Amino acid sequence: MSGVRPTRRGVLTGAAVVGAAGIGAAGVAVAGRTPESTASAATRTVPFHGARQAGITTPAQDQLVFAAIDVTTTDASALADVLARWTDATRAMTAGGHVGGADGIGVDPDEPAADTGEAYELPAANLTVTLGYGPSLFDGRFGLQDKRPAALQELPPLPGEQLDPTRCGGDLCLQACADDPQVAFHAVRNLLRIGRGVVAVRWMQLGFGRTSSTAAGQSTPRNLFGFKDGTANVKAEDTRDLDGSVFVGGPGSPAVDQEWMRDGSYLVARRIRMLIESWDRATLGEQERVVGRTKKSGAPLTGSHESDPLDLDRTSPSGTPVIDAAAHVRLAAPATNGGAKLLRRGYSYTDGLDPVTGQLDAGLFFIAFQNDPESQFVAIQRRLGAHDAMTEYVKHVGSAVFACPPGVGADGSWGDGLFA
Amino acid sequence: MSGVRPTRRGVLTGAAVVGAAGIGAAGVAVAGRTPESTASAATRTVPFHGARQAGITTPAQDQLVFAAIDVTTTDASALADVLARWTDATRAMTAGGHVGGADGIGVDPDEPAADTGEAYELPAANLTVTLGYGPSLFDGRFGLQDKRPAALQELPPLPGEQLDPTRCGGDLCLQACADDPQVAFHAVRNLLRIGRGVVAVRWMQLGFGRTSSTAAGQSTPRNLFGFKDGTANVKAEDTRDLDGSVFVGGPGSPAVDQEWMRDGSYLVARRIRMLIESWDRATLGEQERVVGRTKKSGAPLTGSHESDPLDLDRTSPSGTPVIDAAAHVRLAAPATNGGAKLLRRGYSYTDGLDPVTGQLDAGLFFIAFQNDPESQFVAIQRRLGAHDAMTEYVKHVGSAVFACPPGVGADGSWGDGLFA
Repeated sequence: MSGVRPTRRGVLTGAAVVGAAGIGAAGVAVAGRTPESTASAATRTVPFHGARQAGITTPAQDQLVFAAIDVTTTDASALADVLARWTDATRAMTAGGHVGGADGIGVDPDEPAADTGEAYELPAANLTVTLGYGPSLFDGRFGLQDKRPAALQELPPLPGEQLDPTRCGGDLCLQACADDPQVAFHAVRNLLRIGRGVVAVRWMQLGFGRTSSTAAGQSTPRNLFGFKDGTANVKAEDTRDLDGSVFVGGPGSPAVDQEWMRDGSYLVARRIRMLIESWDRATLGEQERVVGRTKKSGAPLTGSHESDPLDLDRTSPSGTPVIDAAAHVRLAAPATNGGAKLLRRGYSYTDGLDPVTGQLDAGLFFIAFQNDPESQFVAIQRRLGAHDAMTEYVKHVGSAVFACPPGVGADGSWGDGLFA
Repeated sequence: MSGVRPTRRGVLTGAAVVGAAGIGAAGVAVAGRTPESTASAATRTVPFHGARQAGITTPAQDQLVFAAIDVTTTDASALADVLARWTDATRAMTAGGHVGGADGIGVDPDEPAADTGEAYELPAANLTVTLGYGPSLFDGRFGLQDKRPAALQELPPLPGEQLDPTRCGGDLCLQACADDPQVAFHAVRNLLRIGRGVVAVRWMQLGFGRTSSTAAGQSTPRNLFGFKDGTANVKAEDTRDLDGSVFVGGPGSPAVDQEWMRDGSYLVARRIRMLIESWDRATLGEQERVVGRTKKSGAPLTGSHESDPLDLDRTSPSGTPVIDAAAHVRLAAPATNGGAKLLRRGYSYTDGLDPVTGQLDAGLFFIAFQNDPESQFVAIQRRLGAHDAMTEYVKHVGSAVFACPPGVGADGSWGDGLFA
């Protein structure tokens, strides 16, 4: 097998291969979109270059490493330099290569190696790394006050949340997704190492088993409640939804107030603890009432197939709504939220035990992309947090919002829009 | 693809398939041993039934969920009942099925479902679940004092360890390994749910990217130090090593003092924090001196290929040993330890940030199987903890030892040796 797979070693000993993978396609960076391509997903690369960043509409990979990061200096040029070095390193790693090129694993015994080495000989595994800027980055430390998009605001207090400040916020974020956890961790670790002295991790989250579907060819995965999750999500093929709801500046999107955010998107992250012990004690009927779908097939309670549209008006012979007034699917539905849609990219997480209760600390690390957080995530969550029957079984404990800039070209840096 | 893969749905609608997978093979439960078979690893099952438990010599799957568990009752029959129910559930789940059979995901709306459902339609992904008993289980609460094997003792204090009591010990353990993290988590979650009221989790550890190789066909993976790890490990094909060093009662193993442990093995678990920020600042030469192997190829410093034997006596022209006196490979080598060998089954872990130092809490969750912990793990670790050059870069923070009973037949229960 090793002779035909594009492993890191193979990529590095064949410069032409790096070039071919590196030039990439303009436009939305979507790879592995068709069902056939998932068979050998681990050996695939996702183009890093493009008008929009990879890792937004890219079909969700199996594993997530998400880092929220603070800048520890007030030297804007040092930050710009880190962003440029991060871009180069990500360009190499997403093509299946290393920080520092073919010799990254180390040649000079008297120097630390440029790359930490644990992904050597591993395939690229569809690695994507997506960068975002938090509202706090624009607070004046770096002279960026005038570059802050109006849509990038700290999220307001939302009903029912019980936030842990150590799991909230961040000046920057890095979302690394790959089909191999070692590849995703390697990417974040090496970027943090490059940034040492300029940035420091604020919090970090690992996730697995994507809980949203962003391509028509992917079956809808189940969340830790055992239900299919994300059926009504925006699909990567829905150009109109992507332009109107996800990316900045396309047809149907809000007006662009900061040109550097054109083709960017806003990332909302929420660490949603699931009280799975309580959930597991609930009857099947209660679970299906809370969700509004059948557990086995994922069909709405008013339909028989997963893809059937919700019929929010249908009532039972006794006159009660078939989909409960407080059902999660009703309150999250675009029809209930003035047409608002999100592109979800959530992952399940399990972080051992809650030290206070001794119960499993597990749930959903919810990630959503949109072009106007206030009218999309915030509006939807105001309704859900106040009325959703599911709130009895979940707790929002972490929260952050980031502006993800557009993609970069072959010679560009992530920071160009802010610092060039 | 879904038409040919043995998904959970497929297994359940074809009872003959369950039967065929469920009968399994006697003897060592090893599946997917050849390189070819890893291509479609996610769809494979590992036989649960056999003279020895699966998950010991089984080629390491990609993902680990390990739970140390305490018994919260003194009712021995309640514990025996849980062990019997765990056996049935594991029998079903490792065959790609569900707790409670085909209807496990739920049929009666007025009852909680037997299975939590998040693995529905997922393939078995080579799931194995391995059970172990801690020394504390034999303390008298369950009338098992006379059944304690002499080799099952709490580990003595070892040099250099800095143990966190919340990550140590346990009356029982469950080691779930699979190529899909959701499948491994589903197994442990459902077993804990079955045991509610009788057992409670004491601590839990997730791991990824196996850091040991137990089959000739698997390439040696790299640990988070970027080095190949486990090259000199016992291989699943080495029948003599398995009998002499790993399983109880075979040719070359210590005498059997408790017949119920024949074909069992002792599991030592250590949570080894790696101080990767310090490691990443070390020069390549220092890293290779500490390990005793070259980083790129994994060859010993006295050889040119990974599989070359160590030459511990070779000196440089200046008279110093080529493999440093304190090198990890020297101190861990069987030649340095009176021939003592371990079967390793370690996984890398990353658990976010250390709340005190703000550094990454990452490292190796070390698991080793043997038939005499005192002369194997303990003897080796006494030497390593006192002299190993690597101790500067690692910290043992968690520790436990368990007696893993033999495997079960088609009608047996894990608890038969202790309670039948």
